[in-house]
Amino acid sequence: MKVMLDFCVVPLGVGVSVSQYVAECQRVLEQAGLSHQMHPYGTVVEGEWDAVFAALRTCHERVHALGAPRISTSLRLGTRTDRDQSMQDKLDSVRSKLASSS
Amino acid sequence: MKVMLDFCVVPLGVGVSVSQYVAECQRVLEQAGLSHQMHPYGTVVEGEWDAVFAALRTCHERVHALGAPRISTSLRLGTRTDRDQSMQDKLDSVRSKLASSS
Amino acid sequence: MKVMLDFCVVPLGVGVSVSQYVAECQRVLEQAGLSHQMHPYGTVVEGEWDAVFAALRTCHERVHALGAPRISTSLRLGTRTDRDQSMQDKLDSVRSKLASSS
Amino acid sequence: MKVMLDFCVVPLGVGVSVSQYVAECQRVLEQAGLSHQMHPYGTVVEGEWDAVFAALRTCHERVHALGAPRISTSLRLGTRTDRDQSMQDKLDSVRSKLASSS
Repeated sequence: MKVMLDFCVVPLGVGVSVSQYVAECQRVLEQAGLSHQMHPYGTVVEGEWDAVFAALRTCHERVHALGAPRISTSLRLGTRTDRDQSMQDKLDSVRSKLASSS
Repeated sequence: MKVMLDFCVVPLGVGVSVSQYVAECQRVLEQAGLSHQMHPYGTVVEGEWDAVFAALRTCHERVHALGAPRISTSLRLGTRTDRDQSMQDKLDSVRSKLASSS
Repeated sequence: MKVMLDFCVVPLGVGVSVSQYVAECQRVLEQAGLSHQMHPYGTVVEGEWDAVFAALRTCHERVHALGAPRISTSLRLGTRTDRDQSMQDKLDSVRSKLASSS
Repeated sequence: MKVMLDFCVVPLGVGVSVSQYVAECQRVLEQAGLSHQMHPYGTVVEGEWDAVFAALRTCHERVHALGAPRISTSLRLGTRTDRDQSMQDKLDSVRSKLASSS
């Protein structure tokens, strides 16, 4: 089962600057070979369910290892059985609607 | 690694009534033997990371099997290395703060 | 327009214990006279759109005033035009499905 | 109070294709003059609290007007009192961490 995941890791107990923890998660996704795209309030990743959630677990382990005693992550998670749809497909679909209406 | 998860499964393409899909997810958690608590906009579950995410995957599989071609789930997910904290502990902690201030 | 909101306020820069900030948000909802229900990973509140979001803004202002320099909140938010549905209605609907299948 | 919001509107009761509803929300943000950035699982918008939440309300109203009887939206929402931080600042901060470590 393929999944698209949008996640935002929020470490607690390490002050207000979280960019080093977000950077570590980017490295995890890179090392896992998963297609991903960072945005200003999270990161979208797509792939097989087990590979994506193994990477998410590694993100939590690495962020704890960097010193964060507590993490609160918010996620959106999409699966579909009717067809494949990539991150790019989703963006293209909205943009074609916008173009045809302008 | 223990995890607390709050999730809300939203099936698309099956109309506006979602209660039968939510009920199916309750059965999945029950069968998995995971401690869980339903609220009006989701369900909180706690347990070992792999068991909790295996149950979440089963929820998606069952909701697809019931006829939903697309699912969009939102999650919150907490881990901590400083101490164990159950669902009840979290509620008790807030309630003690409220009681002491009134 | 009525809305049901499930929110979880995560203050950053104030250590790992967040219960006093959650308690403050409970007080805000109480003072606003909004129907609400706390669960282990957030609080569900229902009411008119403007009243609910005014309360959410007050929550952020109060949590900042208590000393949190940064807040990251996750929300779920539901509106419907087909019928009214309270927090209790949603729970009852799932429970009746569970009861009829057991 | 400035706010950064990441939101994903999920219309129910209108089938599995949601791109026209997402496109309508892009138009709302454009008309409101709010800085925003679409990604594959949502849209990030920044601005003054009241302007941002007025736009979110308009998004719900427009998506209902397009025929969706029910909407479930997930949001992340950040405020901070220590300093201003734009969407671009957040991305730059993570990228500088990644560049310095490679």
